[in-house]
Amino acid sequence: MTLLKHTAFRTIQRRLASHPLNIITHRFMSSSSGTLVQTGNADRSKLIPFSSRLRGGRALAQDVWSIYNAANLPADCINLGQGYMNFPPPKWVTDAADDALKSLLPNHYSHPKGRIRLRNAIKNFYEKSFNRDLDVETEILVTSGANQGQYSVFTAFLEHGDEVIMFEPFFDQYLPSVTFNGGTPVYVPLHPQTDAVTPNNSNWKIDFDELRRAITPKAKMIIINTPHNPVGKVFTREELEKIAVLAEEFNLLVMADEVYDCLVFDGKEHVRFATLPGMWDRTVTVLSAGKAFAATGWRVGWLIGPPSIICPTLAACTRIVFCSNSPLQEAAAAGLEQAAERGFFENQLKEYQERRNVLLSAFDRLGMKYSHPEGSYFVLLDISRVKFPEDYPFPESVQGRGRDFKACWFIALEIGVSSIPVSEFYCEEHFTIGENFARFAFCKDEETLRKAGERLQGLAKYLV
Amino acid sequence: MTLLKHTAFRTIQRRLASHPLNIITHRFMSSSSGTLVQTGNADRSKLIPFSSRLRGGRALAQDVWSIYNAANLPADCINLGQGYMNFPPPKWVTDAADDALKSLLPNHYSHPKGRIRLRNAIKNFYEKSFNRDLDVETEILVTSGANQGQYSVFTAFLEHGDEVIMFEPFFDQYLPSVTFNGGTPVYVPLHPQTDAVTPNNSNWKIDFDELRRAITPKAKMIIINTPHNPVGKVFTREELEKIAVLAEEFNLLVMADEVYDCLVFDGKEHVRFATLPGMWDRTVTVLSAGKAFAATGWRVGWLIGPPSIICPTLAACTRIVFCSNSPLQEAAAAGLEQAAERGFFENQLKEYQERRNVLLSAFDRLGMKYSHPEGSYFVLLDISRVKFPEDYPFPESVQGRGRDFKACWFIALEIGVSSIPVSEFYCEEHFTIGENFARFAFCKDEETLRKAGERLQGLAKYLV
Repeated sequence: MTLLKHTAFRTIQRRLASHPLNIITHRFMSSSSGTLVQTGNADRSKLIPFSSRLRGGRALAQDVWSIYNAANLPADCINLGQGYMNFPPPKWVTDAADDALKSLLPNHYSHPKGRIRLRNAIKNFYEKSFNRDLDVETEILVTSGANQGQYSVFTAFLEHGDEVIMFEPFFDQYLPSVTFNGGTPVYVPLHPQTDAVTPNNSNWKIDFDELRRAITPKAKMIIINTPHNPVGKVFTREELEKIAVLAEEFNLLVMADEVYDCLVFDGKEHVRFATLPGMWDRTVTVLSAGKAFAATGWRVGWLIGPPSIICPTLAACTRIVFCSNSPLQEAAAAGLEQAAERGFFENQLKEYQERRNVLLSAFDRLGMKYSHPEGSYFVLLDISRVKFPEDYPFPESVQGRGRDFKACWFIALEIGVSSIPVSEFYCEEHFTIGENFARFAFCKDEETLRKAGERLQGLAKYLV
Repeated sequence: MTLLKHTAFRTIQRRLASHPLNIITHRFMSSSSGTLVQTGNADRSKLIPFSSRLRGGRALAQDVWSIYNAANLPADCINLGQGYMNFPPPKWVTDAADDALKSLLPNHYSHPKGRIRLRNAIKNFYEKSFNRDLDVETEILVTSGANQGQYSVFTAFLEHGDEVIMFEPFFDQYLPSVTFNGGTPVYVPLHPQTDAVTPNNSNWKIDFDELRRAITPKAKMIIINTPHNPVGKVFTREELEKIAVLAEEFNLLVMADEVYDCLVFDGKEHVRFATLPGMWDRTVTVLSAGKAFAATGWRVGWLIGPPSIICPTLAACTRIVFCSNSPLQEAAAAGLEQAAERGFFENQLKEYQERRNVLLSAFDRLGMKYSHPEGSYFVLLDISRVKFPEDYPFPESVQGRGRDFKACWFIALEIGVSSIPVSEFYCEEHFTIGENFARFAFCKDEETLRKAGERLQGLAKYLV
């Protein structure tokens, strides 16, 4: 039970109940001894226990992505739940992948550090925004998606019992990535402000006293996600500077998850944490080709940081995946090489800003409150006013979970637009904050968003 | 120091000495306390210690691949060291990747289990050889290369201190993949026979008494690699049946690494371990698109096994990489779908058999002994008769390591053909067995192998 201390065992059991994948593991979980129990006519092999690390980090719980998967929803439901684009990568980028596939070497193993063409492209693209020269051999590491890059940092740095501070709501993969590597998550909630529709400032606030109190002698790392998924917050320089003071005081390694760095709206400043005074040496910045080039399925990301962080992370990464796929590294390189001359990121930003506005205007027409996205491609809609019948035929997968799980299900089925419940991104202690919100992704073409916006007007009759 | 019990600390230190990547970590390693020491003018961030797990599994040691990297050798050296092909994947397979890149969905996230097209293709391709129906939802898992699939199994099943039995010589990635996940490797050497050139039987033998003695109450898993890298051995049914008895008796989970299953020569039988009586329920089979389709840089592999193994491994895999790259999953699916009608694997096998014979005939002309490859694309040459000057200008990276490290370096520089020293694939206790061998890869076109064979005749004057 101690392994589940970050969450309530009862809730985990509820979460396990209905996942098709967990029919087997659920049976196994029913043993409290840590070894698997033989049930029914199971043979001896069922006695081979899986690792206790799977019992932490919600690793066997049914995740929101499975529950709100398009396959579980009506075929004509507009999917604003999952954060992938309904448009392909730019043709000039996929053309580079085609060229790679026609060649010899880009079909074979890459160096575990990443292909030199991509590392050079990263160097040239990012040096200016990092205010420094970047060494392609020791300060850049290509990973199999940002997710695997983050996982490798935890593998490289966490000792059993080390604490990792993360702001809530958090990207749900952080949690098991930390616990699998022996770490203990420590949660610090961002606090939504009552004037949540004010578009001119960060409307989720850090309580810095609360943050300081959360830092124990066991604290080893802090994760900063800016622009923030799912809140859409872009951390201000002042906020980051205050965090930097604490990172220095408590000697924390900082994971700056900046995968949405190319999506910062309204001329707001994106401050790279690594550029703050003294922070380069303790910061690893996480970036993603999938987010930058509308290619979430390419699994190419990169880390930028000092050799003291990149070198141990390379050692971890080399053993976990050996290297990342070669043809799509070539394509990502072409993307970074040509982005400036094509004005790619400027145009893409304008497109996303338009997409955001289409969705926000639909919420405005409804008079519903939302968290105004300063960056990323997510908006949190305040669903506390959405009333649904208690006896609605909810599936077992959302029973016994936060109110937002039911609300999102109801909206998907009755209105025809899917979203993701936000309590999933909180620890059990704080999940009631998340219950008030649904996350809508606007990484979809304008027509789809316009259609979704029209459908969403149907919510009016369910508002109280 | 206890973390290094599988190997001699002295040797690790030697290995660390010269690796450019390890200039930083080497300094850190000089502390025996487990935390990093501040040296010179290093700033405070250098005090952030990397995880002790990097101190095991040779994770920070300079690996053979880096030492014998083409970049470190003369430009005209023929590279038979690294096991990647000098030919591209078949055009009809890369065409499928092109098609995927031109579509929408295959550029975005796949299901963590793998794309359904690929899982269906795997089901249809493998059911016959597994003698059973395969469930695409619970018995097949696509991974980011076979390497990451193996890593995920260790993450899913190993408890701290669990022992994993592996035959030596072993694929070098097994070692850190086990130790990173808290496991302890237990080594059982394959014993080379003195009549090592006899081509009609497995010439590396298992001592089954030795194997039984190695299985302690802490044993959780055994790894079987057939066809075997680097030995080229295809385990006989009789050998596998004896292992099966032990797996049953000691309730072991079996990792059957069969990534070279499409390369079994001379009509020899490849026995899938999972098909032995009672073994399905405790066996996970590891397979690789890279090996099958000459696409080592695609990072697509798959696991086949019972739900009791695949389900926890999916939970681990989902957190480590989330999902595998989408376009190349589509290509691998096309490969499996069309292989039979195109007679692809039959033709490829003939080509590899020819390649093998070109290389072996060169060794025969020299009158040198080798381990006859029954499968895979590796041959172990007995280099005990190769004499080289003790005062040859060897680089620091091979100083103080096995005799084979020097021999391979000497052969690469004087003869112009690179290979890999085999002592790297042994624990310290047994590494003298490996010192007698160099591994040559014949996954190269015939012309290259013929040229290498001619150059290798130059070895005659160095034989004693």
